[in-house]
Amino acid sequence: MIKTPYLLFLGDAPDQLAAKVAQGIKDWRPENAVGQYRMEGCKADMGLPDMDLAAAKAAGAKTLVIGVANRGGVISQAWKKVLIMALEEGFDLASGLHNLLRDEPDLVAVAEACGRALHDVRVPEVKYPIANGVKRSGKRCLAVGTDCSVGKMYTAMAMDAEMKERGMKSTFRATGQTGILITGDGVPLDAVVADFMAGSIEWLTPDNEPDHWDLIEGQGSLFHVSYSGVTMALVHGGQPDALILCHEPTRDHMRGLPDYQLPTLEVLRDTALPLAQVANADCKVVGISVNTQHMGEDEAKAYLAEVEARMGLPAVDPFRHGAGRLVDALATA
Amino acid sequence: MIKTPYLLFLGDAPDQLAAKVAQGIKDWRPENAVGQYRMEGCKADMGLPDMDLAAAKAAGAKTLVIGVANRGGVISQAWKKVLIMALEEGFDLASGLHNLLRDEPDLVAVAEACGRALHDVRVPEVKYPIANGVKRSGKRCLAVGTDCSVGKMYTAMAMDAEMKERGMKSTFRATGQTGILITGDGVPLDAVVADFMAGSIEWLTPDNEPDHWDLIEGQGSLFHVSYSGVTMALVHGGQPDALILCHEPTRDHMRGLPDYQLPTLEVLRDTALPLAQVANADCKVVGISVNTQHMGEDEAKAYLAEVEARMGLPAVDPFRHGAGRLVDALATA
Repeated sequence: MIKTPYLLFLGDAPDQLAAKVAQGIKDWRPENAVGQYRMEGCKADMGLPDMDLAAAKAAGAKTLVIGVANRGGVISQAWKKVLIMALEEGFDLASGLHNLLRDEPDLVAVAEACGRALHDVRVPEVKYPIANGVKRSGKRCLAVGTDCSVGKMYTAMAMDAEMKERGMKSTFRATGQTGILITGDGVPLDAVVADFMAGSIEWLTPDNEPDHWDLIEGQGSLFHVSYSGVTMALVHGGQPDALILCHEPTRDHMRGLPDYQLPTLEVLRDTALPLAQVANADCKVVGISVNTQHMGEDEAKAYLAEVEARMGLPAVDPFRHGAGRLVDALATA
Repeated sequence: MIKTPYLLFLGDAPDQLAAKVAQGIKDWRPENAVGQYRMEGCKADMGLPDMDLAAAKAAGAKTLVIGVANRGGVISQAWKKVLIMALEEGFDLASGLHNLLRDEPDLVAVAEACGRALHDVRVPEVKYPIANGVKRSGKRCLAVGTDCSVGKMYTAMAMDAEMKERGMKSTFRATGQTGILITGDGVPLDAVVADFMAGSIEWLTPDNEPDHWDLIEGQGSLFHVSYSGVTMALVHGGQPDALILCHEPTRDHMRGLPDYQLPTLEVLRDTALPLAQVANADCKVVGISVNTQHMGEDEAKAYLAEVEARMGLPAVDPFRHGAGRLVDALATA
């Protein structure tokens, strides 16, 4: 568990996109973000108060979160200076960078001397069990995609937010680095050892109240040959009661795989549902989430209407039009 | 790569079953086993010459392989004495034990001093790539099961042996500890980090001659919720041209999962084949391997005939009746 709230470190981000993690925290857990720390030359701006370490401390921040991708896989000396000062001021550090905080001897030494924690969310810190498949109480919803990066995390986040607004019981369950930094907790599934993947998801989504929903962040795709095993562990370890199909209609091949076409939503449904029913015979496909960011408003609406008629399920872009109808579908499921 | 041939260490095995690894080596790579080393009280016997270290050395053995499971997850002092002497005599050590050789400081110190290698085949020693899905030359066959431990390794081994006898080009590709110890090489798939599973199988089964077959050892089952992600990585990373369906008909629930029933062979076929065709559109199911060890001869024959008629595919128990008809099916595929 990463201590909240955060000071978001934007460093010397060359543009807004480089600060994707900070953006996610700002969008989905604004209550976790007391301010932003920008260095000279920073081109990103979350619209949060700019704070130095002392101001952030006074505002209650507990952890400095590296909300920006670094260049060249090296934690620069300019960053280091800030990170070390932050440890000395009493902040923990959290990072999803590929190069780990714990591999930097100077950071480790200062963290130890000051009694502060270094959280590398790419590395599992729990000894997960082997999955046992025992039926758990409570409800679970999993987003599955025709491809990677089609909006599965966004869909689960948006549904969780809508459910909370309605007073329903729900928890977003992060399975990737960004999700973990946003919420402060979760399983970095792509870094878990093969035998423990499904068990890590059982661990993440334990018994709960009968009317509580876990919104599980999806990973990869059953049709993406690089990562399909990770997706499969979510389908079986997550024991979902409900599946949301996620799609990005303008993509002309699978992400990173130029020779592979995306499956249709029908093929995704007919593949994912029987597999999910191995772990939960009552599982249903309840809705469709379409990422229409590359479509105009009219085109998006026409596409969603066509998909909805064809599949007989609510089809929405939760970013564009809200997740309300997906939550309606869950509530009636 | 583990240096062959081996001296098989049977230790103080309480029975024949405890020496399963040694049995596999003896059955499948007898040319790799120059002799056996038994301690006082050993109840296992591979029918190999009993040798002390000096005799095994003289007979050409390069590696002492721990061919027996240890009790209680501890490498006993009695074993240690032999292992240390073996290192001093110039043997490498190889082990598939959960408790690693490399975690024993005395073994590490002696191995370093003597310049010998400690092979823990449970731990990946290669930095595997992320799978790229690019079509590879050569042919690949994968055994997929209705459950774990239904005879997938045995099936691939038996087919490989039969193909070699016929002068066909084939390689057994080990994906588990026993297979790796038997052949001296492979990928310990259940210990690979999630993101690299499919890539490790691409690495294991690279481009080859057009008429060469890789016989890939299966793991888990698409229907076993604890390990299905591992199986999925084989189905996509292996890019199989041919699938063999494996089944054990007398099991009344999935291994280790009392609440889960085995799927039928039809359901396995209809699930595995479309998934395999994502990575290789030409993939076919070519045969069925049934583990009939718990059936009488008449019962086994009747069952195989019934399955063969029902499925329209050759159905054999390769242990009982040979793998010839499965290889015929591959050859015509």
